[in-house]
Amino acid sequence: MSKPQKNAISPSRQEDYPEWYQQVIRAAELAESSDARGCMVIRPWGYAIWENMQRVLDRMFKDTGHVNAYFPIFIPMSFIEKEAAHVEGFAKECAVVTHHRLEPGADGKLVPAGPLEEPYIVRPTSETIIGATYARWVQSYRDLPILINQWANVVRWEMRTRLFLRTAEFLWQEGHTAHATREEAERETRQMLDVYADFAENYMAMPVIKGEKTEGERFPGAVQTFAIEAMMQDRKALQAGTSHFLGQNFSKVQEIKFQDQNGKEEYCWTTSWGVSTRLVGGLIMTHSDDDGLIIPPRLAPKHVVILPIYRSDEDRTQVLSYCESLKSELEAQCFSGGRVEVMIDDRDLRGGEKAWQHIKKGVPLRAEVGPKDIAKDAVFLGRRDTGEKKGVGRAEFVSTVSSLLTEIQNGLFDRAKTLREQHTHDIDNLDDFKSYFTPKDADRPEIHGGFANCYFVETPEVEELLKKLKVTIRCVPLGQEQVAGKCLFTGQPTTQRGVFAKAY
Amino acid sequence: MSKPQKNAISPSRQEDYPEWYQQVIRAAELAESSDARGCMVIRPWGYAIWENMQRVLDRMFKDTGHVNAYFPIFIPMSFIEKEAAHVEGFAKECAVVTHHRLEPGADGKLVPAGPLEEPYIVRPTSETIIGATYARWVQSYRDLPILINQWANVVRWEMRTRLFLRTAEFLWQEGHTAHATREEAERETRQMLDVYADFAENYMAMPVIKGEKTEGERFPGAVQTFAIEAMMQDRKALQAGTSHFLGQNFSKVQEIKFQDQNGKEEYCWTTSWGVSTRLVGGLIMTHSDDDGLIIPPRLAPKHVVILPIYRSDEDRTQVLSYCESLKSELEAQCFSGGRVEVMIDDRDLRGGEKAWQHIKKGVPLRAEVGPKDIAKDAVFLGRRDTGEKKGVGRAEFVSTVSSLLTEIQNGLFDRAKTLREQHTHDIDNLDDFKSYFTPKDADRPEIHGGFANCYFVETPEVEELLKKLKVTIRCVPLGQEQVAGKCLFTGQPTTQRGVFAKAY
Repeated sequence: MSKPQKNAISPSRQEDYPEWYQQVIRAAELAESSDARGCMVIRPWGYAIWENMQRVLDRMFKDTGHVNAYFPIFIPMSFIEKEAAHVEGFAKECAVVTHHRLEPGADGKLVPAGPLEEPYIVRPTSETIIGATYARWVQSYRDLPILINQWANVVRWEMRTRLFLRTAEFLWQEGHTAHATREEAERETRQMLDVYADFAENYMAMPVIKGEKTEGERFPGAVQTFAIEAMMQDRKALQAGTSHFLGQNFSKVQEIKFQDQNGKEEYCWTTSWGVSTRLVGGLIMTHSDDDGLIIPPRLAPKHVVILPIYRSDEDRTQVLSYCESLKSELEAQCFSGGRVEVMIDDRDLRGGEKAWQHIKKGVPLRAEVGPKDIAKDAVFLGRRDTGEKKGVGRAEFVSTVSSLLTEIQNGLFDRAKTLREQHTHDIDNLDDFKSYFTPKDADRPEIHGGFANCYFVETPEVEELLKKLKVTIRCVPLGQEQVAGKCLFTGQPTTQRGVFAKAY
Repeated sequence: MSKPQKNAISPSRQEDYPEWYQQVIRAAELAESSDARGCMVIRPWGYAIWENMQRVLDRMFKDTGHVNAYFPIFIPMSFIEKEAAHVEGFAKECAVVTHHRLEPGADGKLVPAGPLEEPYIVRPTSETIIGATYARWVQSYRDLPILINQWANVVRWEMRTRLFLRTAEFLWQEGHTAHATREEAERETRQMLDVYADFAENYMAMPVIKGEKTEGERFPGAVQTFAIEAMMQDRKALQAGTSHFLGQNFSKVQEIKFQDQNGKEEYCWTTSWGVSTRLVGGLIMTHSDDDGLIIPPRLAPKHVVILPIYRSDEDRTQVLSYCESLKSELEAQCFSGGRVEVMIDDRDLRGGEKAWQHIKKGVPLRAEVGPKDIAKDAVFLGRRDTGEKKGVGRAEFVSTVSSLLTEIQNGLFDRAKTLREQHTHDIDNLDDFKSYFTPKDADRPEIHGGFANCYFVETPEVEELLKKLKVTIRCVPLGQEQVAGKCLFTGQPTTQRGVFAKAY
């Protein structure tokens, strides 16, 4: 397990961040491009991380009173037409189903047949079809609130795709709720934003800023959009989850009405909120290093990999039996992420190669066990996050594995938070702003800038300038003190202060 | 909670079985038709049953060495073309994506735009696209076996749909494995059949026959198809799960090749196996009665519903506090289906109406708690499976709830098995066979026949006759003694004995 001169991932983050990202995914066997344009195959190791994310989020949703359900993948074209803002936002690039059969054509090759009277689109998001269903379910205030989540695949025909971050098909959850009052719907919107922030920080070990999106960045059809924003290691922002207060916009289009306690007919107040497999991309870019993936323990499919080392068959029997009993002892331990999950890797591979595979895959702890270690009743322990390697007595290892995993979890969060703090600046001068977002080193065009906190007023003029600089307003953070200032771009007085960044 | 004269579901099973099925689904709020033709909305109560099925099956798959992954929803048309048998089986009725954009047309209405060079079909099953991926993953015998499962939605453009049993979109899992040897792939095929039978009998409480499908009923492209077959209460058969040995048929088309230990290039041996939301339909039709759904406890989202009964606010406080502490005590109990799940239904509804909702939804146990019950430290307990109602001391209820749930689980299985035994006959005469499958009572055309065990030889002539009688060969059961007999239809000597039935 001696470390080669070079790092396992080439290029490094500094050399070429976007390519480094692709190579980490490849080396960790997380996902790959498929034969369907822009769609990815999520490989078992990547999917196991997603399953862990699902498990935790699903429990959080249920703990806040939600239930799961499932709605159709197909949305009649007319449903999209009804919601004008939605057409603008989603109808543009989507998968359109126009036929319901394949038949051999004149040359014997298959051709689409059975044209549909009304085309369907594959859901890019489900507000319209779920809204139409809620309209049937809701008659009285007694039917409210409806608190439903759906785990599903969605499709947006993206032109430029990147694994996990932007793919034509992706997996997500979408919560859709309907309420009798505006206040209740607003509370729900904020509650789910808090759930996302809790998940991002305490499970993904990814610090986030909770904030409101400006008008130009709002979900099509929403009254207010809230998001959690994280900083990746190239200092770009990643929007990691959104929660929308939809007001009565959708309920009026979809006729989701109810009789209130006084018999008066009212429109419902609705919300929607979602996170997707994009989170896996965020996890990769927040923690991984030039040796590959690093997974926060609370989301790692395996916490410890035991690597048996032996030369002879006799050694093999002894070593494997030692490893098995060590595995059982470790698996009897729990930490804040649940039971300690252990695997023994006894594949017929060179030890160095095998260890490197697990480094690249981000397993938090590696324990090598050979006859010499057994003689000392010890293991040779490698930590993925710090790279530290040392011999540890078996009993000590078992008794400290829980606290070690918690230490790693917290350490990853602190490291990410420090990076964000180092690259977050208050900027009150346009020249500084421009300079901040200009690459300093032609060899490292991808890594520069960070978050800029600036006073601003949202005007077409400001939007134009930002577009030219390829900088976006990420959000107006919640809970800021209202202090008077001047718009960085126009000089207008304002108390509105936003986070600006280049973004994924 | 007095029982009305009539049953809750109208029509009854005897009066109109297909319509009874629809009404049970409606009354239990399991699912409904959606605005997308042939697609269903799975409502929270129905989805919770599916989630429980998923949880149990997923653990069984993992315990047998499988991992989950995710493959694209879109399959290039050319992939389907390659597998001739597959074209015949699946290309006929499917959702075809031909465009990737919607644009306003001449009249301002949206029209499909951005035609695709090659159309995609929405996966009806994923052998072709997963096979193409495996071809990239497998080079050496060291890469084998691949043991992957996928939880996904699939689409088959069915003309006549019925909730859960046959819908255009449905949810399922599909296992896809690749092996170095024929024997290993065959073992896998049979192992997964056993897993399905275990799940059906021990969780769904639905007795099944494990058998092999005849050539005419095989999965398109398979060498052998195995299935589990169950009898519904109208005595029709339901195919509840299938496991296919695909031989090298797909690996040859998809070029899934590997170098064996001697450096020789070989094609892989592959399998696939799946169960779907159809299982929910099977569960409904196996156990439910004329009062609605009955759920086997091991798959029930809730095992006990506590119904507080009070008139005054003072009573309310006392009753609710009693219910809460009872809930905690019950939830500290475990049975073979895990923790006892309890809910308190304190909605502002008439007691009778409320109790009936839970009867129709199939909650195994209902416990009414009013001031008089509290005075006796007792509850008034209703059993969904038998309809039995009686007062039970609180301590006794808590200490026996686990065994009661297990008793209900076993009772449901026994009841279903008895029905199947009553309606399974050895038939060796064509007239008897025809008479067996002819409705006796014009008022009850749906309920007749059952399973017929008959010797047969598979010929076009026999197939033609069966088609006319609307009877199908369900399977040739595994593990039968090979005894010589004569084909019921042609008189030819044979040892092959099959199960015949009308089927869903």
